[in-house]
Amino acid sequence: MEARDEITAAVDAVRLPDEASRAAARARQLTLTKPAGALGRLEDLAVWCAGVRREPMTSLRRPVIVVAAADHGVAAGGVSAYPTEVTVQMVHNFLAGGAAINVLAAQAGAEVRVVDAGVASDIAHPRLHVAKVRRGTGDITRSPAMSREDAEVLIARGVAFARRECAEGANAIALGDMGIGNTTAAAAITSARTGSAPAVTVGRGTGIDDAHFALKVDAVARALGRDDADPGGAGIALVASIGGCEIAFLAGVAIGAAASSVPVVLDGYPTTAAALVAVAICPASVEYMLAAHTSAEPGHRIALEHLGLRPLLDFGMRLGEGSGAALALMLLAAALRIPREMATFEQAGVATSAIETQPEQ
Amino acid sequence: MEARDEITAAVDAVRLPDEASRAAARARQLTLTKPAGALGRLEDLAVWCAGVRREPMTSLRRPVIVVAAADHGVAAGGVSAYPTEVTVQMVHNFLAGGAAINVLAAQAGAEVRVVDAGVASDIAHPRLHVAKVRRGTGDITRSPAMSREDAEVLIARGVAFARRECAEGANAIALGDMGIGNTTAAAAITSARTGSAPAVTVGRGTGIDDAHFALKVDAVARALGRDDADPGGAGIALVASIGGCEIAFLAGVAIGAAASSVPVVLDGYPTTAAALVAVAICPASVEYMLAAHTSAEPGHRIALEHLGLRPLLDFGMRLGEGSGAALALMLLAAALRIPREMATFEQAGVATSAIETQPEQ
Repeated sequence: MEARDEITAAVDAVRLPDEASRAAARARQLTLTKPAGALGRLEDLAVWCAGVRREPMTSLRRPVIVVAAADHGVAAGGVSAYPTEVTVQMVHNFLAGGAAINVLAAQAGAEVRVVDAGVASDIAHPRLHVAKVRRGTGDITRSPAMSREDAEVLIARGVAFARRECAEGANAIALGDMGIGNTTAAAAITSARTGSAPAVTVGRGTGIDDAHFALKVDAVARALGRDDADPGGAGIALVASIGGCEIAFLAGVAIGAAASSVPVVLDGYPTTAAALVAVAICPASVEYMLAAHTSAEPGHRIALEHLGLRPLLDFGMRLGEGSGAALALMLLAAALRIPREMATFEQAGVATSAIETQPEQ
Repeated sequence: MEARDEITAAVDAVRLPDEASRAAARARQLTLTKPAGALGRLEDLAVWCAGVRREPMTSLRRPVIVVAAADHGVAAGGVSAYPTEVTVQMVHNFLAGGAAINVLAAQAGAEVRVVDAGVASDIAHPRLHVAKVRRGTGDITRSPAMSREDAEVLIARGVAFARRECAEGANAIALGDMGIGNTTAAAAITSARTGSAPAVTVGRGTGIDDAHFALKVDAVARALGRDDADPGGAGIALVASIGGCEIAFLAGVAIGAAASSVPVVLDGYPTTAAALVAVAICPASVEYMLAAHTSAEPGHRIALEHLGLRPLLDFGMRLGEGSGAALALMLLAAALRIPREMATFEQAGVATSAIETQPEQ
């Protein structure tokens, strides 16, 4: 199947969440031995997930965290505190199990999938999934990130990857990213989709000083101002013009998971930029997304607000890799256990509200 | 030992957290394969816990959630949406494993201890710890909650309970509560300790309407205005005058855990009222406290701000039982795994910051 056809097929397969399952999940909560609504967002999470999974009671049997790595031509311009070699070094670290995401995934009972979506150098490893079509992006301050065809292939590969993981039993997919320079691409996408100026969508990334911050704002402004750039373009054109390879791949993963009725847990700024791209291509996919956290990047909040997503955590994290999403998986797993394992008022012989049980008048 | 002497001994045993362990934990974070500070509050949690446990790297081997239940004389006055019988019914539910806290504790890998700190009726069960000295409190709108001697015995029993749990290997103690009417006592304590008016410290508890809300505000105002009440009194006098039996017991648990160099995880409004009492008795104990969440109760936020504690979660929860604290235990466990299991830059062969590694000038 052509890449574009594969994307279209997935977009067409994304349904709205199932209202009947949501309603049944909401009704179930009211039977449990607690005041109505007393578990707050834990209840909302369980109800949301029921609609997404299309079953009144669901669980988090095998969550998967997809960490997609790629390089960015713009990184040569001093927008990051780290040299670009760190991307490939961190891919090796993920594969060896030594990175933060490995530790947090283990704690969350999740499996990590490491994807080369466009790292500048080639890596051979039995557990590395290679999805790349090019070694990094062009420098978006001067030229497109990639061709439209490259973007389509990366998105289609993300779709296929997610659909295969879901077919094999993953019932939650968390997005993770690694790519020196990718918060610059995330800021460009966020500016393009929300209309916010680079001065507010650009942040300090993994830690840059004032001079590098000014460089980064300028880089985003130049990317958005390029003659060939089409900031108002739909998702595929946008990610090809000013995006990143891992952002394109992860946008496909989000659409593929939604097409498989599986929730998608966002992490930080680059994965949320991928969500912006996914929603531009497939508006219904937003219903499948959970915002794990709001990061230290100010533009991340802007992107989440544009998507209408309220993050679970505000921990000042700015690592990426899916680290915040791993924490959200723990909270989601807890939320999904409640309706399955708590006793009902009837089972436990507990009185329901004194106020609500007054005789009819 | 006399109850008062036992409390004094524990207060004297509470040291400030260990600065050397904190510094070593902070230094360890800088060696791990991530930008400095990129894990935000997860790093802060690990550093804080190192100081509390007095070891640079610690873990959450056996967290214990202490759920203390008691009845409140004021509940007869219509301040709650639930009949007082629900307290004892829920104790049975905890013991049978059907309550929210049982499910969330299992998810967090924590053990639940159920304590009768003053339930109106007596319960016999092999796994119930009976700490009570009286069957519920007096109606605080008209008379003291309990005698000063009763308060001392309950606090001392809480201290002893925590010290025994810690000696047996608990290395985190989470506080949970159950008691129809106890958010009224929590509001009274919060008003007394913070100077905030009952109109802002009173909330809707487990769910009451406008008329019952007005009754509850009036109840707190009357409790604070009683001739014998001493709102400015120190912790023991305060909890005797306007507190609750579970609040007194949990205040003792907090002091006992601090005396054992073990972190104390607060839950909702009643447990935070217990923290206010504990800190009034033993100011250094606040260093051992972690605020799990800010609940739907507006006064809870006021109490946490008074303690200078920043909650991890804002989930709109209002159940109690330690439910929010159980979620915090999951996040704390994740935070403590990071320094133990992540690779260092040296181990992984990852470059440190390009900016920071420039040659000296």
